[in-house]
Amino acid sequence: MSSYENLISRGLEWISQFAEDPRGGLTRLAFTEPWMQTQKLIVETMKERDFESFFDEVGNVHVRLEGEVEDTIIIASHIDTVIQGGRLDGQFGVLAGLLVLEKLREKYEKPKYSIEVISMAEEEGSRFPFNFWGSKNIVGAVAREEIEELVDEEGIGFLNGLARVGFDVKKEKEIKKYYKAYCELHIEQGGVLETCEKKIGIVHTIVGQRRYEVFVRGEANHAGTTPMALRRDALDGAARMILGLKDMARTYGDPMVATVGQLDLSPGSSNVVPAKVRFSVDIRHSSEKVLEDFDEQMQFLFEKISREENLELSIVLNEGSLPVPLDASFQQELKKICEDKHIPYLSMVSGAGHDAQNFAPVIPTALLFVPSKGGISHSPMEDTDIEDLVVGAELLENFIYRWAYKGIR
Amino acid sequence: MSSYENLISRGLEWISQFAEDPRGGLTRLAFTEPWMQTQKLIVETMKERDFESFFDEVGNVHVRLEGEVEDTIIIASHIDTVIQGGRLDGQFGVLAGLLVLEKLREKYEKPKYSIEVISMAEEEGSRFPFNFWGSKNIVGAVAREEIEELVDEEGIGFLNGLARVGFDVKKEKEIKKYYKAYCELHIEQGGVLETCEKKIGIVHTIVGQRRYEVFVRGEANHAGTTPMALRRDALDGAARMILGLKDMARTYGDPMVATVGQLDLSPGSSNVVPAKVRFSVDIRHSSEKVLEDFDEQMQFLFEKISREENLELSIVLNEGSLPVPLDASFQQELKKICEDKHIPYLSMVSGAGHDAQNFAPVIPTALLFVPSKGGISHSPMEDTDIEDLVVGAELLENFIYRWAYKGIR
Repeated sequence: MSSYENLISRGLEWISQFAEDPRGGLTRLAFTEPWMQTQKLIVETMKERDFESFFDEVGNVHVRLEGEVEDTIIIASHIDTVIQGGRLDGQFGVLAGLLVLEKLREKYEKPKYSIEVISMAEEEGSRFPFNFWGSKNIVGAVAREEIEELVDEEGIGFLNGLARVGFDVKKEKEIKKYYKAYCELHIEQGGVLETCEKKIGIVHTIVGQRRYEVFVRGEANHAGTTPMALRRDALDGAARMILGLKDMARTYGDPMVATVGQLDLSPGSSNVVPAKVRFSVDIRHSSEKVLEDFDEQMQFLFEKISREENLELSIVLNEGSLPVPLDASFQQELKKICEDKHIPYLSMVSGAGHDAQNFAPVIPTALLFVPSKGGISHSPMEDTDIEDLVVGAELLENFIYRWAYKGIR
Repeated sequence: MSSYENLISRGLEWISQFAEDPRGGLTRLAFTEPWMQTQKLIVETMKERDFESFFDEVGNVHVRLEGEVEDTIIIASHIDTVIQGGRLDGQFGVLAGLLVLEKLREKYEKPKYSIEVISMAEEEGSRFPFNFWGSKNIVGAVAREEIEELVDEEGIGFLNGLARVGFDVKKEKEIKKYYKAYCELHIEQGGVLETCEKKIGIVHTIVGQRRYEVFVRGEANHAGTTPMALRRDALDGAARMILGLKDMARTYGDPMVATVGQLDLSPGSSNVVPAKVRFSVDIRHSSEKVLEDFDEQMQFLFEKISREENLELSIVLNEGSLPVPLDASFQQELKKICEDKHIPYLSMVSGAGHDAQNFAPVIPTALLFVPSKGGISHSPMEDTDIEDLVVGAELLENFIYRWAYKGIR
């Protein structure tokens, strides 16, 4: 039995202790009481174990194993959760980092290069509508103006919420010079590894994303007195657009994904023909060129359908992110380790955003996945076999060892 | 210039005086202050003009022109409105009845048979979720148990709301013996007459209706991490069902109509594949046999799609009404008048319910439509050219004259 198995099992209980939601799952929104208790728990526990352990000005917790030189590899993930999230999303990566740090010191004493585990303050955007607070601040990419207006569900402003627990926006607008590399271990949050029977996902690209709101306008009419031929039914147009969009995505093939997750219509009476439909579109792919192309074809398709159905159309591009390629030599290194250890791995995209994407443009970055049972995440049902978590932790240890002790770049 | 033109213009102002909604249109919910004022206005005005004029126990207002014999033809419609309704839906029929009654007395004095205009208390179900209160009570078809639990938006019980203005459920469970025929003039509330360039609709059948709620269940998944092939997207299934349903309705041809007026999905996040979709289905046709057949084919189609998409399905039949055929000899009579007077008419179904449907199973019943501009109804924009209203009133006068004075059955 790997010692990681026990460490991870007990570690997950330890790190979850303040976040159990009576309705099920874990709820630990950024800068709340259970969140603060957990970050403090990490600082205090790691101090007791003689690690340099501290909060930074934005709320991230850093635990350092100093090497002979200051150059540092970061192992990080986040401890904030969605409401009623699972016990692995984010905190497993933090826990694995802490365990690897201890294990390396225990096995090999002082490394050549420094290693730092960071428990990111905020990634999910579940309390304030802002993602990646922790990692974006480390790389100096948060402007005060971006967050000034943001409030949580209770109407508390972001800056006020931060100030209550002693934090603020980072002043320096760049990453510390000694940070030389970044590695993140996370659950996949999808079902690809399980479907392909692989134990490890080595991410080559975090997909780019475009989000739209589509507004389709027809005419409200009485459901009884208006013959089919006299209708301008916004829902008919929207349904054709939705099916056409999905067909296009399937035709493009993986990793293209297109999702319509929101749809509402008005007036919304069972006996009135819908006059207006609003729906969301979320498209993702690892290539910006492909996204651009897909965007064009989608607009063409939607316009064609709205002309055919005699409807009005407007498409609003809401927000987007560019695809983020990760470090190629790190991927090579990780594949080599997997091959040596006979770990079945998959080179894959990440369809979800991760803190890694904020580091990748600045320093060489790696992102590793372990399988998610049934692809389920952001749910109390989120789960991964303990054996798979162990494989992930061992791979992380191996990779960090080679970087920090063997100087492999 | 027809004298009806002036009478209708002034009459609409007279009957609308208590119901003007500051937001636009007319709002006169059953048993409220403006409703009571309007019913009283009718009773008092018609009393002043020497008609027998009275409230019945349920709130309907009756205005009688007594004939030589008690046998009576009813001319009726309703004065309650939807919220911000138009100035014609319901009250035009009541007004036309009152004007025809005066005109006939003025022209011909006492008829052979009696004529009674009824201003129905409630038809729309806009305040309490109950339609056709007025007409259903006249035919003795309301049981106290049906309405005991019903409340309005403010939580006032139906029975309490009635008692406040002095009304109750009708005790007798049958229609008065002297009611021998029923005639209703209404706006079409659809665009068929306008499209066909006809001035009068002679309704042969009030369509039957079936209402369903359809529940489609798939699996919630992350919009980024779940490849298209691993999804069970409830909205994809629902969209196919909706489009298939409409195709079926078009294939069946008029008067088949199928409407999906409500749709909601969950969890309803733009970055989550929809796990559940609920949508309404409203189908109508003049033949019960056709509705039954359509129902079967719809269930077959929905089940096929849900199997193909690997989704769960449940279809709940919520409420329905049977098609109501109207009196054939009345239709013949009306067509004959139209032909004699060179009025372009259309024999048609009514896709909406009307008070007439409660009388048709009991006594010979006629239902007449005048065109609705743009097919718009239940809206402040509801409108009909005054010339078309006049054609309707004149036809009504003619028909009632032949029944009450000439004894044509």
